[in-house]
Amino acid sequence: MKQSKMVFRTIKNVSEDVKLPSHRLLIRAGYVRESAAGRYYYLPLGMRVRDKVTHIIEQEMDRAGALKIITPVLHPIELWKETNRAESVGFELMKVKDRNESEFALGGTAEEMIVDLVRKFTLSYRDLPFNVYQFSQKFRDEMRARGGLLRMREFLMKDAYSFHTDEKDFKLEYEKMRDTYQRIFERMGLPIVVVESDNGYIGGEYCHELVVESDAGESKYLATEDGSYCAHEDVAKFLREEIGVDEELIELEEVDAPRGNTMEDGVKLHNLPLNRQIKDVMFMDEKGRLILAIIRGDLTVNETKLKHVCGSIELLAATEEEIRNVGSEPGFISPVGIDKNVVIVADESLRKVKNMYGGANKKNKDFLNINIDRDYQPNLEGDIALAEKDFLSLGGKVLRESRGIEVGNIFQLGLHYSERMKAAFRDKDGKEKFYYMGCYGIGIDRTIATIIEKYHDDKGIAWPASAAPYRFHLLNLSKDPETVKKAEDIYQILLDKGAEVLFDDRDESPGEKFADADLIGIPWRVIVSDRGIKDGKLEIKNRMTGEVTFISSDPDKITENLDNIEHC
Amino acid sequence: MKQSKMVFRTIKNVSEDVKLPSHRLLIRAGYVRESAAGRYYYLPLGMRVRDKVTHIIEQEMDRAGALKIITPVLHPIELWKETNRAESVGFELMKVKDRNESEFALGGTAEEMIVDLVRKFTLSYRDLPFNVYQFSQKFRDEMRARGGLLRMREFLMKDAYSFHTDEKDFKLEYEKMRDTYQRIFERMGLPIVVVESDNGYIGGEYCHELVVESDAGESKYLATEDGSYCAHEDVAKFLREEIGVDEELIELEEVDAPRGNTMEDGVKLHNLPLNRQIKDVMFMDEKGRLILAIIRGDLTVNETKLKHVCGSIELLAATEEEIRNVGSEPGFISPVGIDKNVVIVADESLRKVKNMYGGANKKNKDFLNINIDRDYQPNLEGDIALAEKDFLSLGGKVLRESRGIEVGNIFQLGLHYSERMKAAFRDKDGKEKFYYMGCYGIGIDRTIATIIEKYHDDKGIAWPASAAPYRFHLLNLSKDPETVKKAEDIYQILLDKGAEVLFDDRDESPGEKFADADLIGIPWRVIVSDRGIKDGKLEIKNRMTGEVTFISSDPDKITENLDNIEHC
Repeated sequence: MKQSKMVFRTIKNVSEDVKLPSHRLLIRAGYVRESAAGRYYYLPLGMRVRDKVTHIIEQEMDRAGALKIITPVLHPIELWKETNRAESVGFELMKVKDRNESEFALGGTAEEMIVDLVRKFTLSYRDLPFNVYQFSQKFRDEMRARGGLLRMREFLMKDAYSFHTDEKDFKLEYEKMRDTYQRIFERMGLPIVVVESDNGYIGGEYCHELVVESDAGESKYLATEDGSYCAHEDVAKFLREEIGVDEELIELEEVDAPRGNTMEDGVKLHNLPLNRQIKDVMFMDEKGRLILAIIRGDLTVNETKLKHVCGSIELLAATEEEIRNVGSEPGFISPVGIDKNVVIVADESLRKVKNMYGGANKKNKDFLNINIDRDYQPNLEGDIALAEKDFLSLGGKVLRESRGIEVGNIFQLGLHYSERMKAAFRDKDGKEKFYYMGCYGIGIDRTIATIIEKYHDDKGIAWPASAAPYRFHLLNLSKDPETVKKAEDIYQILLDKGAEVLFDDRDESPGEKFADADLIGIPWRVIVSDRGIKDGKLEIKNRMTGEVTFISSDPDKITENLDNIEHC
Repeated sequence: MKQSKMVFRTIKNVSEDVKLPSHRLLIRAGYVRESAAGRYYYLPLGMRVRDKVTHIIEQEMDRAGALKIITPVLHPIELWKETNRAESVGFELMKVKDRNESEFALGGTAEEMIVDLVRKFTLSYRDLPFNVYQFSQKFRDEMRARGGLLRMREFLMKDAYSFHTDEKDFKLEYEKMRDTYQRIFERMGLPIVVVESDNGYIGGEYCHELVVESDAGESKYLATEDGSYCAHEDVAKFLREEIGVDEELIELEEVDAPRGNTMEDGVKLHNLPLNRQIKDVMFMDEKGRLILAIIRGDLTVNETKLKHVCGSIELLAATEEEIRNVGSEPGFISPVGIDKNVVIVADESLRKVKNMYGGANKKNKDFLNINIDRDYQPNLEGDIALAEKDFLSLGGKVLRESRGIEVGNIFQLGLHYSERMKAAFRDKDGKEKFYYMGCYGIGIDRTIATIIEKYHDDKGIAWPASAAPYRFHLLNLSKDPETVKKAEDIYQILLDKGAEVLFDDRDESPGEKFADADLIGIPWRVIVSDRGIKDGKLEIKNRMTGEVTFISSDPDKITENLDNIEHC
């Protein structure tokens, strides 16, 4: 490709609102342009990267025996009704009606479509397992788009769905996919952390995010230094220490508490530590239930964990009015004596403490020496606390906190979809049995952004060769007709050998060309200059390492020499 | 690929409603499945064909210097408002709103998106011309879907858009694209007819459909035998013969006409030929105008041509009430003395006739000896007649009628979009000038169906190699362990050499395997049998020609021998 023919050129400046390095560089270097928030055009350079990344994923999925298919983008809404997802709160589904009033969902994930396809066929246990995958445009009506290609409203996703006779067989595929994903990201230069994560409404024990450590990421996870435990903050388990468990139970006492509404106000007033206070957080869920989450004062309620324990899909902070309606008082909420309609959910931490203090459901009144079972009875108990850095894992090892970008995920669907959609195969015993399923996703756009987050410097992108738009960036620095001719010849030689080369043939200064080359970030720069040609040499520079080598400019040897450099 | 691992197998029967051969075969052989009407899943075999076809198009577009990009599927409706297409009557646009009430069109064609992208860049005449293309899912809210992949509501389209300084430069690209398209379809075994066609609301003289002759097609076109003229019936020009032009003008006479409302009734009553009668057809257009189309009695009004002449976007047949409201009478309409608000549009044929007869705007009254200019004055005149077979071309050659499938189209957009969207480049003289544009589409799914319409027989599909899902179909007919082992070895050898091979390793009868192979239609069948192995031979059968050859089963020579056969 001649750079003079690339109409969508590099630009010097991007809006100050564009913060993220990958976002800024993708725009500046001419890889993408925004259409509407969260919806992007891929320009020719970006398209080549997208095709490279897609191809790697396709190769590895094929190697793992998965079958490539594609479903329509518009999913008949009837299918989503079969699984109760059509109206699910919290799922960013877009819907559209056609002229005949048939309603469709814009595909955001394709479980229903794939199950509907599979149930069109009469299959037996002999046909299992199998795994089908597709690359298709997905739609999520996100409240906020952010960070360029990191969180989009429309994006390309590779989604795969596997079908099995039972959980045991599913586990094998799950392991295979985990290995496949690691290989995929390794080929793109992305070191992957496999993070235990939340399975949403489905439950089930197998669910992992494939995460690349990065400050730009939204996935916060905790891991022991030896890597033996690694989990998303929404699921990470940790050890609650015992506090005052040897103390005698002291009598419950209501005291005047002329204080503000914060935890800290309570600490100051009573001159007692935060971890002896009970933290009370009231929520309203989608069923209209008031949920009172209680936890040791120095811990934080994690809403994802809380949802699992109380079986809610959505939680909103209760309003002051809702709190007062159940005879309590904002800032002074207490499980002790609260209205029986309130569902009290206690964190495990409250089983390992004694003689706590906290609000008394009345303005400016607190209780001292609150004890579980004696003074209040939780309706539900479980792990609803957010794990934080320096906490101990259940095995007693210190947890460290990291941030990362979720580039893929693998998870157990079990019978969730096949049961609801009556998708069954004939088992060995001749009986119909529902498929046991798994699913496996990779976000292509986000993967591209992640590569750049990892591989860039002040000057621009530095692509790993596997994802680069071209292998070689040929720069002609001269205006001397003979050197220009030589550069053209070298370009032709490279093309003839099938090399992927971008040729900067523009009438620009060397400085401009170097700056653009640094910005675009092609792995190997091949420099043609008057001096070099006179000496019979081409300068080769590695974008990532900055290393410079020289090879002979002898036309017969150029590609061979370039191959040698590339492989050392 | 082992056939035992292909879960989406062939089936024997398809619903009787599925009539079209390509549709029946695609379903029976396991290439596609319907999701909703006009929306299809591609199964693994179909996916391979789709990828092959896509790859050919991509190669040829790249060779022609076009730049591959992609736009989002959801187009901000504001862009469509800039070109007045958001509410355009007759365009099957689907629209969707996001949670923030932003409205989007589901892309059916991408002129607005591409122009919006290009105007984000500051370009000069030096950057022109360029041509950008994409493969993307398109949506058309068709009243009726039909014929499997022939007319879909959601489909994959390659659409390209070129940008030029002026019409002259556009013409060069137009010719290049025409050649490119011919090469593309030639590579897929599809002989193309380039048919002049209608440019819709844009006008402009360059617009061609690329058509493959087929009874399954919806494009009716007329061509001279020598191919010097070939045009869609909506635009085909023809010679009007002169009728009675040497006669004297006879005085207009109103006569009693106790007859029915048809043309034939007039012929019988007056005992005069049909081609001396005036045919009057009244329409209401989208602006509320009554349009009276008049034409020689033996010709038919073509609405597309009529729309161009009178500048209407939509025409509906006028109701009896609307006809009476302007002082006329259904079955007896006449341009003579009709209400002045009616727009009279006369076909060219009425300039070559004299002394015509027809209705008199009153029940059971006709005029005899109607003559243009003397008795009525058309508001507009032009070519509004449907060309039919055996008519003469303007050059005097007989026109033949054919049907075909439109697999692609190329057309002039001119300044239509760039003007409305204020997309300009800086010209040599430093002034801003709007881009002169062209656009070029290929329907991928329809192309696949067309290949099958052309290449099939009673037993199944017979793919041209370029579009086939695999090159070789290896059939093992034996259950003898040694032969089975030999077949496995041959499969491995072929795989190792990078050959695309489907291996029928199933535990089925030879009859079943042959039937499936015929149905699936892979070009070269390689048969492993006990007898063959004993003789050291493999039988090779060409699916399209039925020709049988034998090659040595010597492992070292198999791929070489297959290559030789394939190329002869």
